[in-house]
This record gives sequence, C-alpha cells and structure tokens, in this order.
Amino acid sequence: MNVITIGIAGGTGSGKTTITKRIVGEFGDDVTVINYDNYYKAHNDMTYEERSKLNYDHPDAFDTDLFLEDLKALKEGRSVNGPTYDFTIHNRSSQKILLKPAKVIVVEGILIFASKQICDLLDIKLFVDTDADERIIRRILRDVKSRGRTLESVTDQYLTTVKPMHEQFVEPSKRCADIVVLGGGHNIVALEMIFDRIRNHLIQ
Amino acid sequence: MNVITIGIAGGTGSGKTTITKRIVGEFGDDVTVINYDNYYKAHNDMTYEERSKLNYDHPDAFDTDLFLEDLKALKEGRSVNGPTYDFTIHNRSSQKILLKPAKVIVVEGILIFASKQICDLLDIKLFVDTDADERIIRRILRDVKSRGRTLESVTDQYLTTVKPMHEQFVEPSKRCADIVVLGGGHNIVALEMIFDRIRNHLIQ
Repeated sequence: MNVITIGIAGGTGSGKTTITKRIVGEFGDDVTVINYDNYYKAHNDMTYEERSKLNYDHPDAFDTDLFLEDLKALKEGRSVNGPTYDFTIHNRSSQKILLKPAKVIVVEGILIFASKQICDLLDIKLFVDTDADERIIRRILRDVKSRGRTLESVTDQYLTTVKPMHEQFVEPSKRCADIVVLGGGHNIVALEMIFDRIRNHLIQ
Repeated sequence: MNVITIGIAGGTGSGKTTITKRIVGEFGDDVTVINYDNYYKAHNDMTYEERSKLNYDHPDAFDTDLFLEDLKALKEGRSVNGPTYDFTIHNRSSQKILLKPAKVIVVEGILIFASKQICDLLDIKLFVDTDADERIIRRILRDVKSRGRTLESVTDQYLTTVKPMHEQFVEPSKRCADIVVLGGGHNIVALEMIFDRIRNHLIQ
C-alpha cells in the first residue's frame, strides 16, 4: 500500500482538530488519525496529586518511543492497538484504540514537529498558525464550557506552562513545517489544496 | 474559461520567482504570469537623477490601477498588452509584453498582498517566507554578480529602504495569505501541493 503521512501541528486552540476532522469528513476510511495526545506517558507509580503537577506542555511528557513504533507500523500497513489517555485522571486509560492501516495517515499533535524522529516519518508537515489571542479564547471557551473548569484555572495554567512551553518548543518547531496554514481550520483555500494533494495520492 | 488566480508574494530573495518558474515549467501554456515589477509607475517627467532617488520598495511606487485593470482583463479571458519596466533607467520601458489569457494566472510581486484590491482578485494567496539572512545573501549574489552592482550599494539600499519597507509593508501583508511556503523555491512538498491544486483545476 502506498501510504502518505500528513503531520498537523500548531499551538493549543489553533484549529488542528478542525482540519483533521475536515480531512476525515472528506476521505472517510481512506484516512486514519493517530493523535499524539494519546501518547502522554503513563505514570501508574504516582498519585493523582503528583501527576496533576507534571508539565504536560513539555516534549518530555510524551512516550515518543511508543508513538514512533506505532506510526512506523501504520506506515508499513500494519494495524495498531494504540494507547488512549484519560485527562480526568492525568494518566493513560485502560482502553485501547484500534488504528487500522490506511492510504492516508494524519498525525495530529501540538508538539509533533519538536521531535526530529517524528518529522522524519512525515511526508507533509502542516503547521496551523493562529494568533495567540484567538487561540486562548478558543481554549477558554472549550475548557470552561465543555470541561467544566474555572476561568482562573484555565488562564493560570495558560500563563504558567502553556504559553512558556509554546514559545520554547511549539513556535520554534514551525521551522520544520513545509507549509503554514494561516487562520486555523476554516481556511478553505488551504483545505482545498490539502484535499487535492490527498485526492491525487489516492488515485495513484 | 474557468480561470484560477494564484498570488505569490514574499520579500526580496525569498524564492518567489523560483516557484513561479517551477509552475510554468510544469504547466507551460496553461499558465500566464503577470509580474507586479512591470507595473512600477512611469516617471517621464523626471530626470534619471530624480528617479534614482525614489523609494521603489513602497506600495506607492506601483501603478496599481493599471495592474488591476490588466489582471481583471486576464481573469475575464482577454489578452493584455502590458507594460514592462527597465531597471537600468528607473523607468517604464517602451516595450510591451503580450499576456495571453490562460486557465491559470500567476501573479508575482513583493507587495501584491499589501493591496486589498489585488488580494480580492486572487483565488489562492501564497506567501514565500524565507529568513532575512538567506534573503539578503541571495540579493547580494544576484545584484553583485548579475547586475554588476557594488557590495556597498546593495547593502546600503537594503538597510536604508528594502529592510524598513519589508518590515512596514511586506511582513504585515503575510497575514493576507492563505498559505505560507517555508524555505523558498526548493520546497518540494509545497510545490507538489500547488501542482496538485492546479492539476485538479485544469481537469475541471
């Protein structure tokens, strides 16, 4: 099978997931999504208290070795029984997620381009670049409305870890991208280019 | 005729022309290129001395009305007898250039995205983003080697007008782009996406 891997990176609230969903909506079963968020390290040896204090916005928070192994398997056309992550307990969940091989593998994650090893496995690297003010607005709306968090806890976390880690790791990783998509997931012109690239891959 | 217009902007030495040439190389007569550089204002009323002191890196240096008229004609499938510019005399040349209608119109120019009216006529807006140090190296090599200028005159002009105008007009105009192409004209991944977009336009 002729597999193409498309990495979609960008800061919190940039619109990565919207783009991923649009691709899946357009191409359905021809696409498998592997999400780096599911590869946060397991910390079964720690208490909830200890785990909640970890820095989840640093590249070291991820089990990159396992991720590379699973991504390589998908590229080679093998199924993967991947981990999932439970944000409510700050730990790997007991559930697994079956990732089937497909001709298009979308790799989504804030920090995927911060790893050279991950970059080396990606055929197309898209960085979704959205202004910081729009990104924090989306994050606030999402975390306060859908995840029941307080406004103060969201903005505190943003200022103490999300923003500094963005500046230290996410923003510099943009340099590894091939293309920067401006304005997030509703950039129709960019989506059409991505769709045409995928279409031409699928008919090959 | 179903026409698509593709704007290619970016600072001096960013690789705009390389991308334009690659598109023309791939699609030949299906592509017509209209270059904003040919639309510098005519200044027949000024001496060479006076003309050489003008700021050619400011949006006002261009005859945008004539450019819009010609671009609209091409979009409507009409031929254009466009102006050309002679950089050696800092003035519009007496020669004309015949621009034939085509299904793909590539619009190239450093400052095209600084004009909202031009942006409104573009279906796809690509900004070629290359680091300033790489851009000045290319400009020095081009102007000293191919245009016989001294190193001092190139760097003086760069620091006194090119760089300030870049920061004031070119860099902010990036926001109008749909997609940013990183690393200039040798970004194969970006070129493949652009090619696939054009291919799918041509078969429609």
